[in-house]
Parts: sequence; C-alpha cells; structure tokens
Amino acid sequence: MLSPLASTPAVSSEHPPASVSTEELEDAATISKKQMETGKASQRQQSQADVDPFASNYGDVPLEELQSKAISGRFWTDICDLDDAAEGRSVLVRGSAQVVRNVGKMVFVVLRQRMSTVQCVLRASDEGVSTEMVRFAADISKESTVDVQGIVSIPKKPLKATTQKVDIQVRKVYCISRANPLPINLEDAARSEAEFEKAEQNGEKLARVLQDTRLSYRFIDLRTPANHAIFSSIQCHVEDKFREYLRSRKFIGIHTPKLISGSSEGGAAVFKLLYYGQPACLAQSPQLHKQMSICSGYGRVFEVGPVFRAENSNTPRHLSEFTGLDAEMEIKEHYFEVCDIIDGLFVAIFNYLNEIFKTELEAINKQYPFEPLKYLEKTLKLTYAEGIQMLKEAGTEIEPMGDLNTEAEKKLGQLVKEKYGTEFFILHRYPSAVRPFYTMPCYDDPAYSNSFDVFIRGEEIISGAQRIHKPEMLMKRAIECGIDVSSIASYIESFRYGAPPHGGFGAGLERVVMLFCGLDSIRKTSLFPRDPNRLTP
Amino acid sequence: MLSPLASTPAVSSEHPPASVSTEELEDAATISKKQMETGKASQRQQSQADVDPFASNYGDVPLEELQSKAISGRFWTDICDLDDAAEGRSVLVRGSAQVVRNVGKMVFVVLRQRMSTVQCVLRASDEGVSTEMVRFAADISKESTVDVQGIVSIPKKPLKATTQKVDIQVRKVYCISRANPLPINLEDAARSEAEFEKAEQNGEKLARVLQDTRLSYRFIDLRTPANHAIFSSIQCHVEDKFREYLRSRKFIGIHTPKLISGSSEGGAAVFKLLYYGQPACLAQSPQLHKQMSICSGYGRVFEVGPVFRAENSNTPRHLSEFTGLDAEMEIKEHYFEVCDIIDGLFVAIFNYLNEIFKTELEAINKQYPFEPLKYLEKTLKLTYAEGIQMLKEAGTEIEPMGDLNTEAEKKLGQLVKEKYGTEFFILHRYPSAVRPFYTMPCYDDPAYSNSFDVFIRGEEIISGAQRIHKPEMLMKRAIECGIDVSSIASYIESFRYGAPPHGGFGAGLERVVMLFCGLDSIRKTSLFPRDPNRLTP
Repeated sequence: MLSPLASTPAVSSEHPPASVSTEELEDAATISKKQMETGKASQRQQSQADVDPFASNYGDVPLEELQSKAISGRFWTDICDLDDAAEGRSVLVRGSAQVVRNVGKMVFVVLRQRMSTVQCVLRASDEGVSTEMVRFAADISKESTVDVQGIVSIPKKPLKATTQKVDIQVRKVYCISRANPLPINLEDAARSEAEFEKAEQNGEKLARVLQDTRLSYRFIDLRTPANHAIFSSIQCHVEDKFREYLRSRKFIGIHTPKLISGSSEGGAAVFKLLYYGQPACLAQSPQLHKQMSICSGYGRVFEVGPVFRAENSNTPRHLSEFTGLDAEMEIKEHYFEVCDIIDGLFVAIFNYLNEIFKTELEAINKQYPFEPLKYLEKTLKLTYAEGIQMLKEAGTEIEPMGDLNTEAEKKLGQLVKEKYGTEFFILHRYPSAVRPFYTMPCYDDPAYSNSFDVFIRGEEIISGAQRIHKPEMLMKRAIECGIDVSSIASYIESFRYGAPPHGGFGAGLERVVMLFCGLDSIRKTSLFPRDPNRLTP
Repeated sequence: MLSPLASTPAVSSEHPPASVSTEELEDAATISKKQMETGKASQRQQSQADVDPFASNYGDVPLEELQSKAISGRFWTDICDLDDAAEGRSVLVRGSAQVVRNVGKMVFVVLRQRMSTVQCVLRASDEGVSTEMVRFAADISKESTVDVQGIVSIPKKPLKATTQKVDIQVRKVYCISRANPLPINLEDAARSEAEFEKAEQNGEKLARVLQDTRLSYRFIDLRTPANHAIFSSIQCHVEDKFREYLRSRKFIGIHTPKLISGSSEGGAAVFKLLYYGQPACLAQSPQLHKQMSICSGYGRVFEVGPVFRAENSNTPRHLSEFTGLDAEMEIKEHYFEVCDIIDGLFVAIFNYLNEIFKTELEAINKQYPFEPLKYLEKTLKLTYAEGIQMLKEAGTEIEPMGDLNTEAEKKLGQLVKEKYGTEFFILHRYPSAVRPFYTMPCYDDPAYSNSFDVFIRGEEIISGAQRIHKPEMLMKRAIECGIDVSSIASYIESFRYGAPPHGGFGAGLERVVMLFCGLDSIRKTSLFPRDPNRLTP
C-alpha cells in the first residue's frame, strides 16, 4: 500500500480534503485519516492511481471538494497579471477553456478570464505529465471551468492569446465544471462582418449567430471579447464617471421609488400592476421624485436606476427596461446651467473612455467597426429653430411646431457634423407641444419651451429642461396634457412650500454606450435586454 | 420720468430682463426698450418705486424673470462656504427662509441650504433699506425660497445658525417662490424625544408630528437636519463607499432586469404584472441575473438597485421596495471568501462614516439619540450551531433546524455584544431548510448549508451563501422547494456551459443606514418609502 501522503489521490494535491474547520490546514496525518473515510471519490481516484502513477495530477474535481470543504491557502493568479517577470514560477490559474487543441502528444488549452487569455501547454514528455493526462486534457469540453497549475515560460514567438509573452507549461489540470456541447460557438459569435465577407470571397461559409439566438443564450454570448469590453469596461466606467463627475459638483445620489401611483411621463407606455389591491404604475422615469427631492431642499440630485417603458417598439433603439442616468438641480437663472453640466460631464466621459480604454474600444471595433466619436471640448448648442432651418436648407421640411422624427434627427446630425465638425450637440428651445407637461415654457413665447435634447451621431440620448416650479401652472399644464392630476396630487402639492427654479435631464446608459461605440442595436449594450418579445433570460 | 436706467425697477438689478440671446447681457438701452414693452410686472414695480425710492431692492420676483430669461453672470455663494474671510464682501445667497423673525424695525431671516444655515439681518436704518423693505421681509412666509444680497459681517457673539461666525447685513431681498402655510412645522418635525419630555416637565405641550403625517408631507419632513444628514451624507456615502471598495477589488457594476419571468426568491411575496400580455414578476432580488453574470464569465459583479417585496409586512424593518446592495463572485474554495469581502467592505464603510461625518452623525444623534456602533476591525464569525447554543445557555430554546425569529436575533445580538464586544457579526452554516433553493448544502451534511447572515445591533442586514453551480442539483432543489422550474428554465440552463463555483450576498441600503444610526424605523432611511399602506408621495 502507498504511504498516507502518496495515497493522496488526483485532486487532493490541488484540492486537499480538509476538516469542517476551514481556517487552517490540518496536518497530513489527519487529512489522510479523513480520506480513508470519505468513500467513493477517493476510491475512484485510488483505482485511477493504480493505472497511472500521475493520476493525482489531473481529473474532474468531485462536487464535494467544491462545497467549501477546505481553505488550502493556495493562491490563484489572475491571467491579466501574468507577464515575463513570472518566468519559471509555478502558478495556479482558473479560467474557461476557450480553446482545447490536440496536436499529437501535445494539448493546447487557452484559458480565459474576462478579456484575458493565456495559452497552456501539456506535453506527455514533460515532468509528471502522462499520456492519460494529455488525453484527459484533450477531452475537456470547450468553455469548461478549469484549474491549471504549471510553470510560466516564455515562448519563442509572441502568442495569439492576450497574454502574448508567456505561456504555462502544465503540470496539473483539473476540471471544475464541465460544459455541455455549446449551442452557439463563441468563435462564430465573435466574428466581424468583414470576416464573413472575406470567407465568402474565398468560397467558405461561416456560421452566423443571429441576434435572437445570441440573446436566448446570452450567458454564452456575453463571453465574447467585444461584450466583455462593452460591459466590464465601457458601460461600467461610463456609470463610474457619471457618478464621480456629479458627486464632485455637489450632486447627491438618491434612490426614488419605481412603484408609483400615477404615470410620470403621461401616455399609454406604462406598465400597470396591483399594489396591495390598489392600481399602480412602474415609473417611466424618476421625474416626479427627483423634482420632489429638489422641493425637499436637496439642491442637486442624481439617480442611476431602471426605468420602464411599455411602448410596443421593436426598434434597434428602444428597450422596455433600461438604465436611466438622471439628474436634477436648482438653477439660478437659466436652463443653460443644466446644459453646462451635461457639456462638462459627457466631454469628461468621452475623454476618459478614449484615453483609458484603447484596448477595449479596439476589441469592440474589431467585431463592430466604428469611427471614433467626433466631439468638441465645448459642446455646440443650436436652437430648434436653427436646426429646422438647417434641415430646410438641405431640402427637409419640418413642421415648425412638431417634433423631429428619427430620420430628420439623423439628417440633422449629418448636417451638424459637416458644418461644425461634431457628432455631439445640444438642440434647445423645442416647441412646448412636443414636450412633457412639466416643462417650463419660454418667457417670451409659451409655444416654445426651456427644453433641449442632446444628440450623439444623429440620435437623441438625453432629454432635459427647466421644469415648472409654480403649482398652479403645473396643474394647468397637466390638465391640458390629459394627465389624471389626482394620480400626481402629492407631486403638485410639493411645489406649494417653497420650490426653487430647477431643471434636469435624463439619459439612457445603454444608449450612451451604444452610440459612443457606434453600435447598431441597443440590445448589444443591455446585459439581459427586455423588449416586447423578450422577458428571458 | 425717470431715466432709462433709473427706471429699471425692483427686481431687475438682481434679475435684469434680457433678450432671447442669453449668452451675453445686452446693453442698457436695449434693456430699457424691452422693459417699456414688458407690461404688468414693470408697471407694478414702477408704481411701487413712486412710493419707496428703494423699491428695486426687494419684491416678489415675477415668474417671467425665472423662466430662463437672462444670464446675468452673477454668482450665488453657497452658505457652507461663508466664513470670516468673507467679512465686508457683498454676497448673493439663495436659500429657504427657515426662520423669519420681526423684532421692531429689524428682521432676522435664517436662510438654509441642506444642513447649512446663515442669519441675515435687515435694519430699516441701514443703507438702501426702507421701512417698507423690512415689512416685506417680515412678511416672507417660512420655507419660501429667497434671494438675499448683503454684506458679510462678524457678529459680536457666535450665532445659533450653522454659520456661527458671520451673518449677512441685507441690502436686497427677493422672494423667488413663496411658501403656502406649512401643514407641518419644521421645528416640531426636528424635535427629539428629550425635548418633548423636558417641555412636559415644564408643563408645556409641544406639537408632535406623527410618522404618517411626516411621510404624507415627506417633501417638507425631508428638510430637517437629521434627514439631510441621513440622505445627503450618510446614505449617499454608504453607496459611494460600497461601490468604491468593490470596484477596487475587481468587481464590475452591472444592471440586471427587474422585469423577470419567474420569481427570484420563491414564495408569494412577489408583485405580478402583465408584460405585453405575458405574466411577469418584479425581481425580489437580482439573484438570478447576478448568478447568470458569473456564468457569463464576469468573475465579480455588484449591483445597486431597487428590489421589490410584496410581503404584507407592516413592521419597522420592512419596505415593499428598497435599494439592494448585491454582489456575486467566483469563489476558489470556500464561502468564507465572500465573508472576507463583507468584512473588509463594511468595516471600511463604518470607519469612513465615523471619521468623516461627525457633524452629520451628531445631527442625527441630536434628534434620535444612539450609541456608536460597536464593531471589530476583523469581523467575528460564529456558526449557527454556536449561536443557538449561546441562546440555549441564556434560556432561549431554538428549534435547531428552524430559523431565528426577530426576537431571538435581538437576543443573540445582545449576547454576542456582551461576550465579544461587537454588534456586527456573521452567523454561518444555517440549516438548509431555511435558505433559498439555490443555496449550496454543506459538503458533510446537506441538512446544513454554506450560507450566512450578517447582523448589526441584533438585526439581520445581509444574507449570503455559496450557490449551487451544478444544474441538476439546482433543478432538484428548486423542485423540492416548490419552485415552478419552467419559469426559471434559462437560469438553470446557464449553469450547463461551464459554471465556476461562486457565492454572493445581498444587503439593503436603507437597513444598513438605519442600523448603523440606531434608528427605530426603516421609513426614516427611505427617501419616499413604500409599504403596504403607502404608494405616495
């Protein structure tokens, strides 16, 4: 019989069985005694060991070992931290097996963590590596979660993995969670249009992963480099920067209720439900409550949170639920004070993304090519009248008191880009008729309002305005707009006890990311998108 | 007739009428020409001017002047920035008239911005101040929004206002938004229990503002110093610190859908609605989607967002909608890795609040006295078995496979405080029967689970666990717990394509703030609370 320590089978050197007390490792004798008792797993590994003296260096980790059985004190290295300074060191890495390639007696496993990958090499001739172990590695299904322990080495030429300068010469390999055959191939899901075209020219046919399939298997689709760049880097940092900028300008982060008694924006596009027997709505925006926060003396507030729109819009730019980036602030004199915040805020966000996330923007660009956003350090402002005049001169007639449709917005974006060299601008002083009831009319002509939209690449991403702070006027406008004022009674009431002039804006996080990156669908920037046809996953 | 400039009436010197082009001030001639045309407002001010040569130094600002008519370039000083360095300087301040006190020919107006107040003094004998102006100021209703322009001066002795060292000798005063008579008095709303008792001892009777009245007029109630401290400072910074700590440890901020097809936590406490004709739920937590994000390879994620509970609980610790602080992470070996994050995170939050927000915590303490939270730099962990043993020894028998009720939790909190000197601790290894279906059972006894609750002052604020990452086991547990597995099919599916072991936790922002500050109701830490009886404001 093998000595107690030698009998420690397959998994245990990397996943040593341990006692209930997980704070410290037990001594070897106790471990081996416990092993005698553990049964099946050890027995199976034992019989494996009879065949292969290196059986303890590989295998499927039994669930039991993954149920918080022990704390071994081992350290797992992050792939992004691997570099040539680690040459010769033994490292332990857990990742997803993105590629498993068997070349004779060698197996290459490319492990992935988020956007980082590293190549791991098994050779049957290497120390402690048996032919059975190589066979085991070759059989690991793609996307399985795998632990690899090995020596960092420097390959002769840079590799294709993101960790180009080093690879790992594998000494141990354990499968933590084996993946089923994949319904979509990640390589296919990550291809650019150019690759498809090139293949077609060469007479090849590559598999396309259609958007609906992607979304049904979103938990696989999200693993592509472009998606990791979008969500792990760009989207997350847009929000960070949004918060940081506003916090530094004395804005307070708030959370307002999504369950409300009356619709916040009017119209039919509202999800209704019963709230303990009482009719309620899901907030279409934090509009009412962010204004009430201003009436409560909070001065400057912002909120990042879900907003709900029951519109039956199946367009590439609409979602039924998205992440609102909302702000509201006292203004001293003019709604341009709000525009100034937007100007500073978004230019700061754009500058930051361009400076810090070159690699990530490249990853997106590789799959979905786009031109960097053109914007000015001081954001251009045009009046609505100037905007429709530009359109008129270019041959597009707009009803002067109507709204711009998507096509006209696109065209205006093009005209502004040509004339002013920017794809980010503010259009203000919209006709009152096309703005919500709470919008402050212009002092000199109530047919116009102290409102604005902000455009990126010819698409609206922000709406904002000065708000009506006089309760009588607000009530009158609500009634004119067909709002059931009883459902927003407390909102109107809040303006009766000293309400400072104020304004604010709302943007959509997904739309900001989509348009900054020139993507063609908002479904690409929502982690688990919701539209009229999709409530899962 | 007065010269064009002299005719510029009341408001205009502080609120100069301007043209449509708001970028620059127009020259005086144009201004006066416009004024001739503006009608009513000017006429009224004109006739006022006939009576009082100083009429332009005070008045109600007409709405027109507040409709983004002009940008004057004037600078409004923040009250918190006023100090003795400003002595002799002319400043312009906008705030809420918290106090208006008429003492003979003098009027004291205390202006407030968030937690800061400054005393403003009008004397009929002062330069440019008429008796009419003093009368006007005396008539300003409490909580009106007011602009004051005056000279910073140093009073003989420190004042009661938060700006103790300086006051403002008023030269001009304009009412921006006049408050109606207040349904609740802010002074009453800000009183401590001790004040009521003291008054009672002196035979006085002070008006009490009951909680329900407070909440109905939340936009007034929120103006008290304690509420400003809670929302502008503590709550907002708990979130900031939560994000900052997790971001620095490679967590990614995500946003998951609140509209979902199946209930995330099981049970009946779920709001249901129709989603384009299809049955849907409001997420009781981001549980399913944060786990799916881990299955998508995002490694470590967190979310701050609303969670919805349709429980019919009218307790001081339940809300129907609150702000979830959720995190989920891959674990290498043990759920203690999650506990370590919680330990570091919450100790960092507590230390930060205690260091930075002494004034704010004092403001809360003044109205709602509390003892500073006792916590250890390294958070105590006890097993559930140890916890019920402590209770048993103290005479409270707990069903070993059942859950702790609120009373037992309170008592355990007390026992732990006495024995270990901490009011913040982790209780782990709960019976499986009292945990959600997705909780990983212990490796050595499936009747127990790799789960934990975290307590502050004897109340649960965090629940967490290792999760089941094997789809078959997950499905089995869901069925055993009576979950409709078809409604969470895609969630279960997401574990089939390589799912790393993982765990996470969820806390409630409102509960963290409530318990850190020793408050007696969660309604005190929700900006606009929602409970079974309250859907407004």
